[in-house]
Amino acid sequence: MKRFEHVRHRAPLPLPQPRPLILAVSPMRSGVNLSRLVRLAGCAGITRMLYNGPQRIDAKIARDAIDVVRVDRRRSLAPPIQELRDQGYRCVGLEQTTNSTCLYEYRYERRTVLLIGSEREGLTDKLLRLVDDTVEIPVYGQPASYNVVTATAMAVYEYCRQFPAG
Amino acid sequence: MKRFEHVRHRAPLPLPQPRPLILAVSPMRSGVNLSRLVRLAGCAGITRMLYNGPQRIDAKIARDAIDVVRVDRRRSLAPPIQELRDQGYRCVGLEQTTNSTCLYEYRYERRTVLLIGSEREGLTDKLLRLVDDTVEIPVYGQPASYNVVTATAMAVYEYCRQFPAG
Repeated sequence: MKRFEHVRHRAPLPLPQPRPLILAVSPMRSGVNLSRLVRLAGCAGITRMLYNGPQRIDAKIARDAIDVVRVDRRRSLAPPIQELRDQGYRCVGLEQTTNSTCLYEYRYERRTVLLIGSEREGLTDKLLRLVDDTVEIPVYGQPASYNVVTATAMAVYEYCRQFPAG
Repeated sequence: MKRFEHVRHRAPLPLPQPRPLILAVSPMRSGVNLSRLVRLAGCAGITRMLYNGPQRIDAKIARDAIDVVRVDRRRSLAPPIQELRDQGYRCVGLEQTTNSTCLYEYRYERRTVLLIGSEREGLTDKLLRLVDDTVEIPVYGQPASYNVVTATAMAVYEYCRQFPAG
């Protein structure tokens, strides 16, 4: 008898309610990265993203997430983030900054907007003025920063770990 | 005064020794995914990968990791994994299987070979017979599985969280 047998097409775990985690994404240089973020969101049970760039979402990359993640396109992320903060969401920037908290130590609020910067420039000063906290993922070697989707995957994983039941 | 100021080009954290975490990667359909795994490894302080496919590593994607991560190409992953196990490494398969452990609960051994399956087929039965444990990342929505690089990023993050100093 095999000890570990591959389980194909395991059904996703149902969440009692949509996760109150919203991804707010700065303009991506690459529609591939945007599409990969949509797939990540779908798998993680995230149902809402904010985005302010022109890139299209590639269904071959985002897969079924394209049907379950609502992506609101805005000319600027600042107004919807401010609205969400007024509603009680905590806005967390994923960026290497002064006064950042290591992601290992960070305790998320359930209602969180996770704010993601562009591939090269990261988060703008304007957006950094809106965040309640910034979290930073330790890097131990070269190149000195994770790809934007990789870093977002880690930050989303940490959230799911803290709120495994949603 | 700004509360959070972007720190550009923060130097990686030095590790007192190379991480005793080795990525063993099944044939990828895509050289892009392989190259992204190399970048992930470089950033995480991983210095060694095993790979048994023909794809080339794209330096535009892997960036400087191409110089710091040694990628050993093998015709089969089984013999080097068995050698590493004989040396005391624990072999952990990242796969949805029977008897898997949720990554949230899993306690890594420091000396670990993290075994990654192909994009579509995952880990073969042959490789699953070699692993000591399998870990699985909960999925909460569609599509029902994470992209291979995304899942690997989460598993590597969890390792680094448990061994922040290497």
